[in-house]
Amino acid sequence: MSEPPDEVLAAIAFNADGLVPAIAQQHDTGAVLMMAWMNRAAVAETLETGRVCYFSRSRDRLWRKGESSGQVQRLVELRVDCDGDTLLLLVDQTGVACHTGRLSCFYRAARPEGLVEIAAPEVAPEVLYGGG
Amino acid sequence: MSEPPDEVLAAIAFNADGLVPAIAQQHDTGAVLMMAWMNRAAVAETLETGRVCYFSRSRDRLWRKGESSGQVQRLVELRVDCDGDTLLLLVDQTGVACHTGRLSCFYRAARPEGLVEIAAPEVAPEVLYGGG
Repeated sequence: MSEPPDEVLAAIAFNADGLVPAIAQQHDTGAVLMMAWMNRAAVAETLETGRVCYFSRSRDRLWRKGESSGQVQRLVELRVDCDGDTLLLLVDQTGVACHTGRLSCFYRAARPEGLVEIAAPEVAPEVLYGGG
Repeated sequence: MSEPPDEVLAAIAFNADGLVPAIAQQHDTGAVLMMAWMNRAAVAETLETGRVCYFSRSRDRLWRKGESSGQVQRLVELRVDCDGDTLLLLVDQTGVACHTGRLSCFYRAARPEGLVEIAAPEVAPEVLYGGG
């Protein structure tokens, strides 16, 4: 008999690199915040701790969201899509999701006049990452 | 001087396979419907026609969403994330997005008791894809 986390992990079709894309959505407003990647260990840790952990492809290691910025994501619910190759994380975001200081990473929109910024930073990146 | 579509295309960081993940979200309810992939031609066609076109990795060709099921997606707005490697499509979905007949592909949730279906099909797959 498998534990629930094993059943969830077994339903996920990780790609050839052992990763699955995970979309983070603010649970109450519906705002799509960001997309990042998870490996098996990141999914397991996220389910166990209730705090979202991704896998950073650039740093090649587990990335506990907010570990340096303090902008953590509490997991409300993890969903798996029909063919198991994408996750949807309903989260409660502390502060902002984007490293630019915006709530969402999707702040540029294609408009007839070109690519337009539709949201301004709520926090200065220097405040998130450094200096003090 | 570049046309707006070129400016948008230039901001997208396609991966080594020439693809970028695209999240489809219902523009008025905020429901996350699905995630699929686009290549350069799919993005250009989607912006030009206002009807969402993906790239099917399994069929290795452009996939005009709804071409066999009738469940098309009208583009309301295309957004690009901070590092250009993920797209968010605000769409108006005709009918259902999922091939299982559910509105959203994300219909399974991780719960303490395991992986639980949280939405039932609204349309039978046979009605979407065949038979008559």
